[in-house]
Amino acid sequence: MAKRFDIIALGRACIDLNAVEYNRPMEETITFKKYVGGSPANIAIGSARLGAKVGFIGKISNDQHGRFIENFMADVGIDTSQMIVDQHEHKSGLAFTEIKSPEECSILMYRDQVADLYLKPEEVDEQYLKQTDLLLISGTALAQSPSREAVLKAISYARKNQIKVAFELDYRPYTWQTPEEVSIYYSIIAEHADIVIGTRDEYDEMEGKSGGTNQETTNYLFQHRPELIVIKHGVKGSYAYTKDGAIYQAGSYKTKVLKTFGAGDSYAAAFLYALSNGKDIETALKYGSASAAIVVSKHSSSEAMPTVQEIEQLIAAQS
Amino acid sequence: MAKRFDIIALGRACIDLNAVEYNRPMEETITFKKYVGGSPANIAIGSARLGAKVGFIGKISNDQHGRFIENFMADVGIDTSQMIVDQHEHKSGLAFTEIKSPEECSILMYRDQVADLYLKPEEVDEQYLKQTDLLLISGTALAQSPSREAVLKAISYARKNQIKVAFELDYRPYTWQTPEEVSIYYSIIAEHADIVIGTRDEYDEMEGKSGGTNQETTNYLFQHRPELIVIKHGVKGSYAYTKDGAIYQAGSYKTKVLKTFGAGDSYAAAFLYALSNGKDIETALKYGSASAAIVVSKHSSSEAMPTVQEIEQLIAAQS
Amino acid sequence: MAKRFDIIALGRACIDLNAVEYNRPMEETITFKKYVGGSPANIAIGSARLGAKVGFIGKISNDQHGRFIENFMADVGIDTSQMIVDQHEHKSGLAFTEIKSPEECSILMYRDQVADLYLKPEEVDEQYLKQTDLLLISGTALAQSPSREAVLKAISYARKNQIKVAFELDYRPYTWQTPEEVSIYYSIIAEHADIVIGTRDEYDEMEGKSGGTNQETTNYLFQHRPELIVIKHGVKGSYAYTKDGAIYQAGSYKTKVLKTFGAGDSYAAAFLYALSNGKDIETALKYGSASAAIVVSKHSSSEAMPTVQEIEQLIAAQS
Amino acid sequence: MAKRFDIIALGRACIDLNAVEYNRPMEETITFKKYVGGSPANIAIGSARLGAKVGFIGKISNDQHGRFIENFMADVGIDTSQMIVDQHEHKSGLAFTEIKSPEECSILMYRDQVADLYLKPEEVDEQYLKQTDLLLISGTALAQSPSREAVLKAISYARKNQIKVAFELDYRPYTWQTPEEVSIYYSIIAEHADIVIGTRDEYDEMEGKSGGTNQETTNYLFQHRPELIVIKHGVKGSYAYTKDGAIYQAGSYKTKVLKTFGAGDSYAAAFLYALSNGKDIETALKYGSASAAIVVSKHSSSEAMPTVQEIEQLIAAQS
Repeated sequence: MAKRFDIIALGRACIDLNAVEYNRPMEETITFKKYVGGSPANIAIGSARLGAKVGFIGKISNDQHGRFIENFMADVGIDTSQMIVDQHEHKSGLAFTEIKSPEECSILMYRDQVADLYLKPEEVDEQYLKQTDLLLISGTALAQSPSREAVLKAISYARKNQIKVAFELDYRPYTWQTPEEVSIYYSIIAEHADIVIGTRDEYDEMEGKSGGTNQETTNYLFQHRPELIVIKHGVKGSYAYTKDGAIYQAGSYKTKVLKTFGAGDSYAAAFLYALSNGKDIETALKYGSASAAIVVSKHSSSEAMPTVQEIEQLIAAQS
Repeated sequence: MAKRFDIIALGRACIDLNAVEYNRPMEETITFKKYVGGSPANIAIGSARLGAKVGFIGKISNDQHGRFIENFMADVGIDTSQMIVDQHEHKSGLAFTEIKSPEECSILMYRDQVADLYLKPEEVDEQYLKQTDLLLISGTALAQSPSREAVLKAISYARKNQIKVAFELDYRPYTWQTPEEVSIYYSIIAEHADIVIGTRDEYDEMEGKSGGTNQETTNYLFQHRPELIVIKHGVKGSYAYTKDGAIYQAGSYKTKVLKTFGAGDSYAAAFLYALSNGKDIETALKYGSASAAIVVSKHSSSEAMPTVQEIEQLIAAQS
Repeated sequence: MAKRFDIIALGRACIDLNAVEYNRPMEETITFKKYVGGSPANIAIGSARLGAKVGFIGKISNDQHGRFIENFMADVGIDTSQMIVDQHEHKSGLAFTEIKSPEECSILMYRDQVADLYLKPEEVDEQYLKQTDLLLISGTALAQSPSREAVLKAISYARKNQIKVAFELDYRPYTWQTPEEVSIYYSIIAEHADIVIGTRDEYDEMEGKSGGTNQETTNYLFQHRPELIVIKHGVKGSYAYTKDGAIYQAGSYKTKVLKTFGAGDSYAAAFLYALSNGKDIETALKYGSASAAIVVSKHSSSEAMPTVQEIEQLIAAQS
Repeated sequence: MAKRFDIIALGRACIDLNAVEYNRPMEETITFKKYVGGSPANIAIGSARLGAKVGFIGKISNDQHGRFIENFMADVGIDTSQMIVDQHEHKSGLAFTEIKSPEECSILMYRDQVADLYLKPEEVDEQYLKQTDLLLISGTALAQSPSREAVLKAISYARKNQIKVAFELDYRPYTWQTPEEVSIYYSIIAEHADIVIGTRDEYDEMEGKSGGTNQETTNYLFQHRPELIVIKHGVKGSYAYTKDGAIYQAGSYKTKVLKTFGAGDSYAAAFLYALSNGKDIETALKYGSASAAIVVSKHSSSEAMPTVQEIEQLIAAQS
């Protein structure tokens, strides 16, 4: 029997403030538009846009920003019953985006004591998790306690209830204390996940080195639980490795790039959606790449998430 | 011989993000405009707009927001040589303004670990202070260490060098730990200031009670250093008391109110400007009220600060 | 070829201040004697007393107490080259012992910001760990960062280098934030250890419940790495379970109890020593029980650790 | 009419652990004796021993050490009704004393998150303070919030109720963040005190310089409230200055020095006792010096506080 959810995402749901006047330094930007942001929120929104049944576990601020986030996510069809409202005046994380040029994008982050990092392990509901086939974990949720322990608890529930875990590395330097901490907690989660997705640089952070190879990464992780490992190399495309030794590759789609934000999240949303709808890995990689190409051509991350039709049109157009 | 500065303001210089779509809850606002904000920054900007020679002592973030603040203040003619750039990743404070109606305005504040509260006492330069006639202290700078100690240090330099101190109570509940702390530090500074300006409610916070009277407040403070005490009662107007027993009153000017933000800062800027330009107290009160009336009719606080001509036109129009 | 060490213990080495006047409340005790204390330090000292080659990884205070600890441990033959001297004014943990009666003992702990909890993962040396057959982890080292991460790092080195890990649960409520944290980190370490030793109550803490059974505990842990699980039931004796289904039991030895402190540490030292010297599990349990019986009859924990001869005499005397 | 108390002391009451085996480094000391310690507690005890009516305002730990402190102070006749029992697991401060030689004494301090620094301003009772003629403030209580604010509150009550304030500088580097903080808060309190007592070095800390002179110190402080300033120069004796320009000097008494701890506290207790019993300043200085000479010849600070008879005998013997 089908479960209630195709995917439950766990982690942060925040506010993006995107420069309306762009192709300039942010000092010269006066107007900003507000969107929902944060990697797992974007993946949840992207999945819902593609038609998946989606739940979300997280903590949001008890203010106008928190309510905006919950309203937006509910409007796209996400179940927000497990988006807990913080009661200790923690704020929503903010990301002011600066778009100097398509190649030069940066983010000014507000992540001090943000609500999402205060999700507690006792607030993760095992009965809720049992209603999904797939749990998506975002690496940033590991950066601080108690959110870190909430992830560890969710992973242990997932294992106990035979729920697959996808780990999107989503490494952001802010809020982490030391590279050693990153490496230690990323390794623990990656070893216990079924699917791991990240950029080459993110795997290097996890392995505590620079210049690592995909061979080393897959040698290491396939000794543990993972069955499918996706490693992204930016415009050079991405690779998927399976435990039985198969390797798949996908290029990237041509597009008019406005900014680079949101590429990874839209990739993950479409890739996981395709897999859970019975597509083969090769097709899933194309879905991921096409979805990313569409989002980087638009102003927002969350609102720009494509439909299945848009993705298939782009794939068809560039085959 | 005239000093280099008419006034040096000490305290926070932050970012206001004002709702572009207003007369609605902020959940429904999508676009925000960025302005410089924060009470002492607004007073400095207002003073400069009126033609005063202005300096500023504060700490700003080492990012796009910090640079925007410094650029804007330098552009209106403020000396920013003592606006120290934070080196520990503290951010600029943010104030998202919500304008539901002219009567219902609120602010969503980001004040956790903001740069301005990290100004240290050893960063306050006695030689710089000696170049002004008047030091303006903003109460919010007392909320946390080390900014609290920077204020205490500045006060001690001012006393040592016969510089007048104006204390604008500027009470904001965020970042203060307890009402007792508010009362203790507000009292210490008020007792050592020459001019104290605040609303009736703010004096009540200082005195640790509710329903206090102007009589009680002036009885208390005139035992200490203050010579001039301004107490504002909102639309009912404001009072000025002098140590020799004189009382002055001013009404408020009619205007089309857009929002209430910025009223107090524009009042203080114009009132202090008038005093330091030899106007009598009665005229100074009119300047304050007229300046406030102009700012509450406009969208921003800092950019809306009026010129002397605009103030005098309004006073003349409503005499 | 034999390795340099039989056992390396990782965790805290602290100061015990034992009441000289006892059988009374500590309020009435005026004189205290100073000993080295802390579970892993006691186990290291006990092991060295029995003749094992012992190393220690930990962080000690840069003061008279820290130097006393290192001197004492070096004097009993422990390699102290990896006892790192703290450089940030963290103090040695203290335990003032109160002995009201043999049945009523309590400890007044000083554990705020103690040096041992500041051991960092980057201070754990893989080359040093490779020189041992067995790594002993103490649960209290998991209570806070960065010591928590140092343990996780050590475990990962141990696994990589085929070093056996013994996990002595050593649960102390101080310094832990919540029961959920205890359960989460105890579970992670227990699942990755080869040998787990603790009291019934400590396993309940790990499993996040009360009234758990040995059957439930062994069912859970034998799904993971552990091969040998020791569960102590106080005066009712202790049980050892092996992955292949065998169960061993040991009673406790008669003795004149002075206080209960140090029982668990002396038990673990003698049990692990016996195992690593080729004794069978049944004999190892006797060693543990006899060693505990000897220590509870004496004033200190560390100085009272018995020799092999003393243990064998007691076993022989009560067979 | 006489008030209920001659003196109320405010600040820390802690535990001293004095080396029983001395004239050696503490690493070689095994036995320690427990006494009540902390400057204001010692002054309170010394005053009570001399026959004064004494009250105490402070916060003590909710454990055996806290109860020992309260019992001991009550036993010497101090009113302990305002010694508040901490409810948040803060511990009593500890001072392990090392006596290498009479000239080489040091202290190993445990002052992290100690109960006395958590006294809150709202816990200072104005009605209680009104019952004394003299309030003694100890500088260490200024080192952290909320104890710092409790002192500021007590000072404001004292001023309001015409209670004299004696400020014993009692500077201890631990727990202070920066020299600027020391200087700022010491100055505020000294300027508002009636009597200030300290060593030459402590006044230098207050003035934020080194090599200051008594002339500079008295020039500065006599511009403010103080009427009597005592400056101690160790074995060279001490000076008392009055606002009307008088200067008094006292030498030190010959004694067999065991250790230097407790000298300042016993000095302050006897000096203030003499003053409040109508002795002239010259006699009060002798009382202070004689009391100090007696305490440094004995093992403890608090228990060694002399009686009036002992002090007068020593003065007579060496006249």
